Amino acid sequence: MSILVVGSVALDTIKTAFSEKIDCLGGSAVFFSISASYFAPVNMVAVVGEDFPKNHVSFLKSRKNINISGLEIKESGKTFRWKASYACDINNPQTLDTQLNVFAEFNPKIPEGYSRSTHLFLANIDPDLQYRVLSQIQRPRVIACDSMNYWIKTKKPSLEKLLKNVDIYFVNDSEAKLLAQTGNLMKAAKDIIKMGPEIVVIKKGEHGVLFVSKSHPSFMIPAYLLENVIDPTGAGDTFAGGFMGYLSNQARLNSSSLRKAAVYGTIMASFAVESFSVERLGSLKKSDIEKRYKEFIKLTRV
Amino acid sequence: MSILVVGSVALDTIKTAFSEKIDCLGGSAVFFSISASYFAPVNMVAVVGEDFPKNHVSFLKSRKNINISGLEIKESGKTFRWKASYACDINNPQTLDTQLNVFAEFNPKIPEGYSRSTHLFLANIDPDLQYRVLSQIQRPRVIACDSMNYWIKTKKPSLEKLLKNVDIYFVNDSEAKLLAQTGNLMKAAKDIIKMGPEIVVIKKGEHGVLFVSKSHPSFMIPAYLLENVIDPTGAGDTFAGGFMGYLSNQARLNSSSLRKAAVYGTIMASFAVESFSVERLGSLKKSDIEKRYKEFIKLTRV
Repeated sequence: MSILVVGSVALDTIKTAFSEKIDCLGGSAVFFSISASYFAPVNMVAVVGEDFPKNHVSFLKSRKNINISGLEIKESGKTFRWKASYACDINNPQTLDTQLNVFAEFNPKIPEGYSRSTHLFLANIDPDLQYRVLSQIQRPRVIACDSMNYWIKTKKPSLEKLLKNVDIYFVNDSEAKLLAQTGNLMKAAKDIIKMGPEIVVIKKGEHGVLFVSKSHPSFMIPAYLLENVIDPTGAGDTFAGGFMGYLSNQARLNSSSLRKAAVYGTIMASFAVESFSVERLGSLKKSDIEKRYKEFIKLTRV
Repeated sequence: MSILVVGSVALDTIKTAFSEKIDCLGGSAVFFSISASYFAPVNMVAVVGEDFPKNHVSFLKSRKNINISGLEIKESGKTFRWKASYACDINNPQTLDTQLNVFAEFNPKIPEGYSRSTHLFLANIDPDLQYRVLSQIQRPRVIACDSMNYWIKTKKPSLEKLLKNVDIYFVNDSEAKLLAQTGNLMKAAKDIIKMGPEIVVIKKGEHGVLFVSKSHPSFMIPAYLLENVIDPTGAGDTFAGGFMGYLSNQARLNSSSLRKAAVYGTIMASFAVESFSVERLGSLKKSDIEKRYKEFIKLTRV
C-alpha cells in the first residue's frame, strides 16, 4: 500500500500572539506526507523554486516513508510563499501575503515509479489540475481530495466534475456550507454527498469532524483539545494524512476502519498544532501516536 | 430525588429566516424544567406578570413532574420579554429587544415545600440573587449554576463568590473564555476549575460539550447534529435540564454517570431546537429520548 499526494510545498511565514517564524517549511503536500508517512509509504508530487532551502530537501529525503522523486525544483523560479497572522484569533489566520511563484504554473506530472500507488490525495489546488492527475494514472483504490473557498467561488463546475470522480472529499465547515449554499452543516454534508463523493469528511478545526457517507453510517468526533496551541497551520492536511495513512493499511473501508481513520487523523492534527511548521509532527515516535490515540478514546467514551 | 430550579419564565418573540413566533413560552426555568421533568420531579421558582397567558400556566401545571407553586404571579406587573432574530445566523441570535419587567425585581423565595430538593439549578440571574438562594435552603446534594457575559462583565466578584459554592458550572464557550480571559478553551476550563467549582461543563452549541473536573477525567462529546434546526432558543438550559435530571437519579457522581448525563443533556437539547418554544421538547415520550440516546451512542462510537 502506498499513497500518492499532489499538492503544495511552501515557505510559510507565521505570526502568532507570542512569536513569529519566517520561511518555515509548509504546504499541503508536506503536512499530509509527514502525517501519512507514520502509517505508509508516501509518494509526493509538488514543485518548488531554486530558492528552496537544501536543508528542507534533506529533511524530506531523510524521512523513511517519503519519496520526493516527484518534487520538481524549478531553476530560476521562486518557491510558493504564504504569510499569515494568528495574533488575533488562534483558530482563524489572517492572510497577510500570498506569492504563488512557481506554484502558479504547477502542472503535476506523475513519475512512472508512483503509478502503483493504491491511495491518492489531491490536496487543495486548481480542480482542473486535480482532475488532470486522474487521467495520468490507473484508478487507485481510494481517491480523496481537498479544495478551498477560492475554487468553490471561481471554479465550481470544475470542482463538481472532480467530486463525481472522488471517493472521499475533505472539506472544512465554512467551505462545505459555501459549496452547498446552506447554513446547516448536516444538510451541507448530505447535499455534497449528492454531488458524487462516496464520503464527505467535514473538518471543524477545534470542534472536530463530521463524517457523512452514501453507504456508511454518519459519525462525529470531537477534536483532541490542547491547552497550548502554537500554530494551527496545516492541521487539515495533517488530519487527511493520518486518515488516509491509516486507511491505506486496512483491507476494507467499513464503519470501524473509517472511524479509526478519523481518530488517527485527529491525533496527528493535534501534534501538528503543538509547534510551528512540522517541528513536532516530524519528530514523533509511533508510541506517541498510540498513546494519544488511547487517551482520545478515553476522553470521548460514554 | 427532586430538583429545584430558580430562573426566568419569559415570553419570547423569535424571528428566523423562515418564520416568526410572537410571545411564545420561554425562559431558562421553563426549558430547564420541562427537560429535567422527563427524569425527575422539578420544583420551579420564577416570576411572571399578570399578563402571563393562562394557557401557559395550565400547560406547566399539567406537566406530571413540574411543581409551580414557586411561580409568583405579580399583579399589575408585566412578564419578562425577549425578542431576537436568528435570520442571519441560526446559531447566534441577535437580540432585538429585552424588557425585564417583573424579572428586574425578582427576589427568589423558596417555598417550604421545596426545601427537600436534592439538586439545585441556579439558572442565569444576578449572581447575588443566586448566592442568596443558597442561604435559604439546606445544602442540596448537588448545586449547579449558569451565568452569562453580562454578569461576567458587571459582577465578576459576585460570580466568583458564587462559583466557590457550586459543584457544577454550566457555561458557554465564549463566556468561559471571557471569564478566564484566554482564547484557549481547555485553558479556560482549567482556570475556571481553580475558581471553585468541582465541575465545569462548557457548552459549545452545535459543536458539543467539553467537561472538565477536579476529580473526574475530562471528556468531550459532539452535539447531535440535525438537518433542520428551527429555533435554538433554550438549548443550553434544556441541556442542563437533561444533565441534572439524569444525574438526580444516580446514586453517585462518577465518570460513567457524568458522561451519560452529558449525553442526555445533548439529546434533550437536540429536541428543543427542532421547534419554536417548547413545542417539541414538551411533547416527547420516554421512548423518543431513549431512541435518540442510542442513535447518539452509535454516531459517536469508535
